[in-house]
Formats: sequence, structure tokens, C-alpha cells
Amino acid sequence: MIGSATNTVIGEEIYSFASKIFPICRSLTGSGVRHTLQEINNLGIDLKIYKVPSGTKVYDWQVPDEWNISDAFIIDPAGEKILDFQDSNLHVVGYSEPIDAELSLVELLPHLHSLPERPAAVPYVTSYYERRWGFCLTENQKKKLKPGTYRAVIKSTLEPGEMNYGEVLIQGRSSKEIFLSTYICHPSMANNEVSGPAVLAFIAKTLQEFKEDLNFSYRIVFIPETIGAIAYVSRNLKVLQERVIAGLNVTCVGDDRAYSYLPSRAGDTLADRALKTVLPHFDKKYKHYTFLQRGSDERQYCAPGVDLPVCSFMRSKYGEYPEYHTSDDNLQLISANGLRDSFLVVQKWMQVLERNAIYQAKILCEPQLGKRGLYSTLGGQETGDSLGKKLTDVFTYADGRKDLIEVSEIIGLSFDETAMLAQMLEEQHIIEELER
Amino acid sequence: MIGSATNTVIGEEIYSFASKIFPICRSLTGSGVRHTLQEINNLGIDLKIYKVPSGTKVYDWQVPDEWNISDAFIIDPAGEKILDFQDSNLHVVGYSEPIDAELSLVELLPHLHSLPERPAAVPYVTSYYERRWGFCLTENQKKKLKPGTYRAVIKSTLEPGEMNYGEVLIQGRSSKEIFLSTYICHPSMANNEVSGPAVLAFIAKTLQEFKEDLNFSYRIVFIPETIGAIAYVSRNLKVLQERVIAGLNVTCVGDDRAYSYLPSRAGDTLADRALKTVLPHFDKKYKHYTFLQRGSDERQYCAPGVDLPVCSFMRSKYGEYPEYHTSDDNLQLISANGLRDSFLVVQKWMQVLERNAIYQAKILCEPQLGKRGLYSTLGGQETGDSLGKKLTDVFTYADGRKDLIEVSEIIGLSFDETAMLAQMLEEQHIIEELER
Amino acid sequence: MIGSATNTVIGEEIYSFASKIFPICRSLTGSGVRHTLQEINNLGIDLKIYKVPSGTKVYDWQVPDEWNISDAFIIDPAGEKILDFQDSNLHVVGYSEPIDAELSLVELLPHLHSLPERPAAVPYVTSYYERRWGFCLTENQKKKLKPGTYRAVIKSTLEPGEMNYGEVLIQGRSSKEIFLSTYICHPSMANNEVSGPAVLAFIAKTLQEFKEDLNFSYRIVFIPETIGAIAYVSRNLKVLQERVIAGLNVTCVGDDRAYSYLPSRAGDTLADRALKTVLPHFDKKYKHYTFLQRGSDERQYCAPGVDLPVCSFMRSKYGEYPEYHTSDDNLQLISANGLRDSFLVVQKWMQVLERNAIYQAKILCEPQLGKRGLYSTLGGQETGDSLGKKLTDVFTYADGRKDLIEVSEIIGLSFDETAMLAQMLEEQHIIEELER
Repeated sequence: MIGSATNTVIGEEIYSFASKIFPICRSLTGSGVRHTLQEINNLGIDLKIYKVPSGTKVYDWQVPDEWNISDAFIIDPAGEKILDFQDSNLHVVGYSEPIDAELSLVELLPHLHSLPERPAAVPYVTSYYERRWGFCLTENQKKKLKPGTYRAVIKSTLEPGEMNYGEVLIQGRSSKEIFLSTYICHPSMANNEVSGPAVLAFIAKTLQEFKEDLNFSYRIVFIPETIGAIAYVSRNLKVLQERVIAGLNVTCVGDDRAYSYLPSRAGDTLADRALKTVLPHFDKKYKHYTFLQRGSDERQYCAPGVDLPVCSFMRSKYGEYPEYHTSDDNLQLISANGLRDSFLVVQKWMQVLERNAIYQAKILCEPQLGKRGLYSTLGGQETGDSLGKKLTDVFTYADGRKDLIEVSEIIGLSFDETAMLAQMLEEQHIIEELER
Repeated sequence: MIGSATNTVIGEEIYSFASKIFPICRSLTGSGVRHTLQEINNLGIDLKIYKVPSGTKVYDWQVPDEWNISDAFIIDPAGEKILDFQDSNLHVVGYSEPIDAELSLVELLPHLHSLPERPAAVPYVTSYYERRWGFCLTENQKKKLKPGTYRAVIKSTLEPGEMNYGEVLIQGRSSKEIFLSTYICHPSMANNEVSGPAVLAFIAKTLQEFKEDLNFSYRIVFIPETIGAIAYVSRNLKVLQERVIAGLNVTCVGDDRAYSYLPSRAGDTLADRALKTVLPHFDKKYKHYTFLQRGSDERQYCAPGVDLPVCSFMRSKYGEYPEYHTSDDNLQLISANGLRDSFLVVQKWMQVLERNAIYQAKILCEPQLGKRGLYSTLGGQETGDSLGKKLTDVFTYADGRKDLIEVSEIIGLSFDETAMLAQMLEEQHIIEELER
Repeated sequence: MIGSATNTVIGEEIYSFASKIFPICRSLTGSGVRHTLQEINNLGIDLKIYKVPSGTKVYDWQVPDEWNISDAFIIDPAGEKILDFQDSNLHVVGYSEPIDAELSLVELLPHLHSLPERPAAVPYVTSYYERRWGFCLTENQKKKLKPGTYRAVIKSTLEPGEMNYGEVLIQGRSSKEIFLSTYICHPSMANNEVSGPAVLAFIAKTLQEFKEDLNFSYRIVFIPETIGAIAYVSRNLKVLQERVIAGLNVTCVGDDRAYSYLPSRAGDTLADRALKTVLPHFDKKYKHYTFLQRGSDERQYCAPGVDLPVCSFMRSKYGEYPEYHTSDDNLQLISANGLRDSFLVVQKWMQVLERNAIYQAKILCEPQLGKRGLYSTLGGQETGDSLGKKLTDVFTYADGRKDLIEVSEIIGLSFDETAMLAQMLEEQHIIEELER
């Protein structure tokens, strides 16, 4: 099976990697994305990095120009440098066009973004599809700005180039695929979104280590959100629809305040069923959102006509936690434990998919478990022989139609115990697995 | 779409028409039915009036002889004329055979019908299929009758003739039909039943005015209850089964004490779904009866083998309100407001059917609403951009299978808003309507 | 229909027969089984007695050697004969191999079985598939045993022979079969299990008496539990799958403390639906077990690939009542009333199956019940004409798809009343029964 007992250190490793990629200034396009993909590759993952030229039409969309930025700041009337890009890349509105101009405070204000309801945090703002420039700052800072002449400088380029994404395909015995997706277009915010790339990078690493054991093939993508997912779907739709049996959108998986599930549009695909099997083992009261509350790349994967079996796993869901899309979503918000448990959820979800199967009885009527040493030979009194009872329960529902997820729900045992019992029965030639 | 802003006066117009046809002595057959149909025609409706000869076999039934009545009364022992048909046609048992006889009170009593539990009201009694004669009176009147010789006079005829019904077919673009039915066989009672014919007459009038805008064709029938419906079905079964996509039985729609729904036998036809979409806008706690509580012509339309998609709309349902089938069901019981709101329910039900459609996405993945001015181009922060969110919700369920009624239920918006959003998406060539 | 008004005496007759077969020492095999089957035959039932040779392979199992026993006892150190088989056949572990040996108390103890939690009862213990010998006694007796030399004597034989079961097939008009099964392998215990064979013997007797009236054929088997059912299925699988439309496993039907139902694996077969129709008439709060709580021959009949529509009827279910599998399950635990009411449940279940049918309307629209004298001819007022209303309800659901069980649930009448109404409509040529 996938994975080993590295639980004690895996959280620290993921956290350390998250910290490393946290400072990089990512956006839909640009060197920050390539830098991040390179860091993932440096973990030993055979990530293939793809380029989509600016201007490429992808369905209803067009890939924007490439954005790069080297510096940005404002000089206040007192000659002080404020809102320095070198301090935090959140200070600049994403995709800001270059500027170097002197403005009065009144002229500057429309270009400043702050959050009155969270006055100590710098908000995260972008303008991908309309040319703008702007700075972000705390409400407290903004209130202290005095009238006078300001100089606003953004040293950015917005030119034809490329959009990049990374993909790794880990080949298992079957060409049927499990699909995992996260996004690498957010600048320095931790839960949303260095956590997703960090966790999936280590998932990819683990899968590569254990690839001899894999039943299914695994396709893991690190893409810019929305336009990246749309470009990816447009390039791979046919193969995705043919091969993917279950997919997971992984985002906001670094904090430890909640476990959250957002279904696929269809709502009860294999991906959904497996995640609903896994999550209660981590949190009996995990949060169950509806597809109407969607907001990440499941919007593309589950669009009508795309119809991939993809649901989403999150800890504190985007848009639902107070630090979301602000400078407060920092490395203190996420933790090694949070990342580790998210890693374990994804790992367990894959294990359920790997082990899930449909079994069929090979004999008619009940098997004689006693002669195999699996049932007491002394009859008449209750013997608390729960193993024998459980084995006959699994046998009884091995009807060639129900998979182990369904059988485990019917007989009220965990998926793992149900799979273990099925394996015992299979080793005794009492049931057999149907071709997947 | 169907209908205009005549809401303020339409109630008064319907009430005025109801008052006009109230005094007519209707029964299964006879001149009163023809008179009523003529009055409907006088509204400017191209009602076609059909004749079914007495004695015609219709399935398990036979059309009875035609009944006409010119006068009826009783002369009491004191020589006073009482129970005068000229005062109220309810005084005579419907289909009474002619009589002119002197009887003692003891002989007369079996021919008198009153309501001990509602002592001030004259009951409505009929005997269509067994020859009888009788008078109806209040319990209070009955108690005052003194012994002596009475003369009972009924000047009626019961002879081979015809049964009549009216039908209007308003042609829309599609030959698929919406079916509306009410009955015109009740004498002077207001809610049950001048309200149904009055409301449907004005529905027919409105449909005729707006017929250029109609997607579907409309078939509206004014028929005698039970035997009329059976005769109508027997003459039109094939065409009804081929064309009718939804039907409504309209009865007891004049008072304003309740909104009531009685399902089709199947229970979830398009007719039912549309009415269940409409009624909550008028009354969140509308009454939901079961098909076991049926009692009007849905009994025929939903009979096994007939199986038309017809449900019933009522205000206070027949058999459920205290004045039912008595002289207390008079013009004070119904109101212009009650009739107007019933008109609006039927109109809205037709509008839902007209607008309901199945849409299919024309593009893969989400549409870029920003470039169409339908979504904020400034990203990162919640913008309360509910229009954009709602549009993507409607888009997302445009899967070529769900109709707008279902989509509106899934996304939690009203049918009208959902239809408006679908229209915006269609105008933007993002979704398209499937052939109906 | 099946059965007559013998209710007052039938309970006494069944109890008397149960008392007669109670003392016989039954096991999976041996003369006790044959003796019991012979007693059933002596009631006038044409039971056919089958032999399955020892060693026969039946699916995953093998028929064990035949076990017979003539005597068994222990001589205690004081020379007293204790645990005498002649007192109770429960004193010997079922299938004990022969022994005649002197042992110290320490050597003897591993061969002694008692129930600390029910110290005054002798437990029922067997060892069919592993050679052992042993005695059963009360915990109180065991505590009084003193050190010393004991002589243990079991005069049994365990030799190739045969396993027996009885079957009776009562031919009705249709070759479709109703299947009834109970088991005859338990020694002297009353509820579990002389009650099942006693009740089914009288069911068989009654069916034979009324066989001219039977729509379906009836197959009733008296078999050793588990291995007997498996052997039976292995010999008859094809015919059972082709013919059996509903089956009932009858066990623990002698006491009067509860009515219990355990579903088939499928859960909603005709057998289940009929039993769920019947039981509320006996006990509105009857116990509804799940298939996970199974423990009798439904385990074989509902095994994957066997898939027979068989559910179970019990009073106090095996494993659920305190006297289960001990000497306290004696003739005082069961009663004539308990056995009679169980007989009536089975009889009623068969009656429901016999009468259940799918009807189709022969006329379109509602029938005119008035002309047939089935509906008041005086209209207009509520007449409390519940017969007419009920008849139209049954008519209305005579759609050629719903059987009477389903119709009775929809219209809220008992199955019997629904069937009676359907019969009235059929006699009037208004509905007709579809070919079963």
C-alpha cells in the first residue's frame, strides 16, 4: 500500500517546505510560478512543467500576458518609503501595470485597498483581466496617511510570455487514474495557498516511492487557479474523462481548525464516497459544504460537459476563515500537525480507492469457516465469535455488485476492517475480486 | 408572456361576470348550461359549443335525458306559496321529474331535504340517475310546517335532448397543449361553482389577447362535472394523451380563505411541479391534499388508462368549507380579490410552463463573465457579486437534463429569477435551450 | 381460501403434538430425526423422507457421520449416577464420541459445560465437526462436585450413515411455489425447536385439507439446520429459483412474548412485504430485526447466488430470550395460545400471498357504481357513502402495475378489505386480474 510510518516527521517536512515557498511572489503567470514548480521538483518529483503562451484561447477564456515584478513602493510626503514590495508582496495589487508617478493623496486613494473590518491586515487583491495598478495596506496605515505629494513606483512588466503549470503522472498497474489538483498562483499566504502545493508535493513524493504497489495511476497537477484549470482541462479533457475514476481538489489544508468536504456536482461519485468514508476517522463532525458553496477548481472539473468525478478537501475552507486572503494568513496560521493530518487524509483517501473492490462469492450457501479455523467448532452457546460473524457478513454481501465502501456501510464496520476481512476470505478462495 | 398589468381591475371584472351567471339554473343538461356557455362566449371568447345526444354511451355511463324547468313551488295548507323556484333554484332537487299533486305533510316529508346541522341554509341536492322529485328548504322552515294538505308543483321536462359543453383551443407555436378544465353544471352557488367558469373565462380571454406570444397551445373546457368530463375524455382521449403536457382542474376559486392543491394520481407530473412552484408565492402554507381526497374531474383525467397529467387548484376545497353545497355559498362568500388572486395563480402557473425549459451549456468550463461586464474584474476580496454567482449557478446546472423548475429548486432561487438568469446567459450565447 | 375456524382447538392440538416430539433426542443425524419425521407423517401428512449419505459434499461442506446414542451418565466418587441421559438428553454434548473411562475431577472438568450466569439451567452444547465428548450440567451441580474418581460413560456411535430431511409438496393450480422451512435437529427444547416443526406440521395438514382451493403450490421442508439447508439447496437450487415466489423460515414460534420479523437479504421481496402486511394485525409493535441479526436457515436461502425471497418469522427470537439453548426452554415456555397465534400468522401470510394480485381497470374513466347499486343515487350532500368511495379508490389504483399489498398501503385500508373490494369490482367486470 501507499505510504509508511513517517507520520512523526512528515508534518515537519511539509511545514519546512511550505515555509520555503511561502515568500515567493506567485501570480497567474511569471517567474514566481516557475520558481515554485522548480522547488517542488527539487524534492525529487519528476514534475513536467508546461507552457501555455499568452493569448492562447482556452474555451471561453484567453491566457493573459505574463506578469513579472521586481520592486514596488510608495514614497510618502515626508520622503519615507512605505508599502514596500520587499517587505510583503501583498502590498501590490496582483497584475499591477508599471507606474512611476507623483500623485496627491486624493489621487492616490482610489489605488489603495484596505480592510476596515480587519484594520491590522493587508488584503490580497488582483486585477488579472483589467489593467490597473494599486497598493494594499492596513486600514490603520491608511488612516495615518497625510495630505501631500506621494510617489508611487511599481516596477512590473506585463508582456506576452507564458502561463506555466506542473504535472506528474505516476504509473500504477492500471491505466485508470486518480487525479489530484492544487494551485500555485497565490503570493505569500500560507493556508491559501502554500498548504495545498506543499501537501500534494509530499503526496507525489510518497507515491513515487511506493509506485510498485499502486493499482491505479496518479495524476497530480499544480496549476494557476481558474485560468490554469481551464487551460489544463482544454488540453486534457478526453484523457481525463476516459481515465479518471476519482479526483480531489486540495486547497487550504494547513490549519487545524476544521476538516471540510465540498462535494462534486454529481454529489455521489467514487471520489465523494471515498472521502466521506475517510473524514469521520479524523473528525466525526467534519464540515459538509454543498456544491453551491464551491469556489475553487472543482468549478471547472465539475462544469457541465466536463463532469469529472472531483470533490474538494479542505481544512478551514477559503472564504470561511477570518484571515482568508489577508496578510494574517501567514506561517503562524498553519502548522506541522495541520499539514500532517491533511497529508494523512489524502493518503487514506487514496488507500480506500486502492483497496476498494467488488467481490463475488465463489461458493453457494455459507462457507464452512470452522474447518478453516475461522469459527468455533463448539456449537450451541454464544461464543463471542465476532471474527466468524464478521467474515460471514462480508461474505454475505459479496454479491458481485456492492463495493467494499458500500459493504462496510451496510455491515457497520470500518472500511479497513471490511477490506481486511475480504482479504481473508479471498485468501481462503471463498470470494473473488471482480475485474476493476 | 401571457397577461398584462390588469390586476387592479381584473378582479372586479371577474366578480361582475360571476354575478351575471350566478342566477342561471344550471344542471347536467338543459337551457341553463347553454345560457351559461353563451354568456362566456359573449365575453369575446371563441367557445365552440358541443352537443352529446341523450342516451349516448360514454364508457361505463350513459348521457341522461335533458332536464329543463320553468317553475316549481309548494302551496301550504294556508294557501301560501312556499319554496318558490323563482326565489332560488336550490329549492328544487336537481333533475326532479314533473309533479303536480296534493299530499299530506307525512306524504310530503320524504320529498323534503334540509340540513339539521346548518338550520338556516337550503341544501343542494340532485338525483341525476334515478327518477325522483323533491324540494330543499332550511331546517328552520321545515320545523314550522304544519299538518294539512300541501300542493307540490314542479314544471319540469325530462326528455331526450342533449348534453352541452364548451371548448376553446388557443393555438400557440407548439402543438403541445396546456389543458384547463372547469364545470358548469351547478345552479346558484358561487364558490362551487360560478368561480371556476368565471376565472377560466377571463383566462381564455387573456390568452386570446396574447396568443401571438404563446409557446404552447391552450385547451380550455367548460363541461358538466363527471358525465361531461367522461363524455369529453371519450371523444378526445387520443389527442389529449398525445398533446397535453400539463393540465389543471380549476374549481372553488372564488373565496379568499385558503389556497389548495390536490395532486394528479401520478403526483409529480409537470402540472404538479409547476403548481407547487407557484403556490408558495401566494401562500407559504397552502393546503396540500392527497389524491385520496379527490372529488372533481381529476377523477376522470387521472383514471387508470386515461392517465393525463392533471392536478387541481382550489381556494377553499369542495367538501371542506361549511357553506359547501348550500345556499350560503352565495355571492357574499366570494370576492373580487379572491377571484383575482385565483386568476393570478392560474396565469402564473401557465407562465411557469411557458418559460420552463431545459438548457445546455454551450461552452466547456465556466464562462468568463468579467469580459461581458457580468462579474467584477477586481479579484481577491468578496465583492458581494451575487449576480455573477447566481449566473454561474444557473450555468453550472445547465446540463441538458434539468429543467428550470428543478434548477431553481437546487440553487434556491425563485423560478422567475432563475428563468431571468437563464435568459441572460442565453443572450450571451453561454447556454442554449434544448428543443421542447 | 386456506384454513377454517378451528382456531379454538388448533392451539391445543399443536401443543399436544409439540409435547409428543419434545422428548425425542434429535441431532443433525440419527434415529431421533427419523423418529420426529415419522411423527409428523403420522399426522396424515405425505412427508417424503430423504437420505443424504454421510460424507456427501454439499458446496463448501461435507455431511458428517451419523450419530446415535443409547445411554450416557457419570458415576460420581460416591457411586451415584449423575447427569443421566435418561433424565435429559441435554446432559450430553451433541455428537459426543463414545467413552467409558475413569477420570479424576481435574481431568473431567474440561469435558463439563455449565452456565455461570444461569446457574440452575443445563446448557445445550454440540460439536458436530470436531470429535469431542462432554457433559452439560447446571452451574449449581458443578460447584458441588467433589474431588475423586469419576466414571464417564457415553454409549454413542459415530459412523457412516445418512442425514435425513422431510419434504412435502402440496400442489395448487399454479406451479409457482410458496416455500416454508423449519428445522428438526434440536433435542429437548421447546421454543427452539419443537415449535417450528409443530406449527408447520399443522400448516401442512391444513394445506392438504384445503388443497383444492390453492392458487399456489406449497413446499414445506423439515430439515437439520445449516448443513441440512445447505444439502437441500444443493439438491434443489434450480427448481427453487424458478418456482419460489415467497418463502418463510419458521423458528421459535411457541412462546407468546413477542412477534419478530427478520428480513430477507434483499429486504423487500414479496415474502417480506406480505409478512409486514400481516404482523401489525397481531402486534402493532412487532420486532423488526435486520438481516445482520440473522442466525437460522435464511443464511443459506439468502446467500449470494442463492438469493431466494425468504424472510423469517419468530416469536421470541433465538439468541434473544434468556432461556435460549438451555433446559429452561421447556414445555412451560411455550403455550397453546402462543403456538396457535403463530399458526395464524403463517396462515394469514399465505392467505395474503394467495389473494394478492395485480388488477387492471377494464373501463376508462370512473365506473358508474350507482347503476350497480354500489353508490347513492342522491347527489349533492355527503352521504357517508364510504363503500362507494373505497371502491373507486381500489379502482383508481388498478393500473396494471400495483399489487393489492401496495394498493392497500396507498389507500390506507387493510389488505383483507382491499382484496374484498377488488373482488366486488371484479365480479362487476370493472377490473380484471392480470395473469400471475
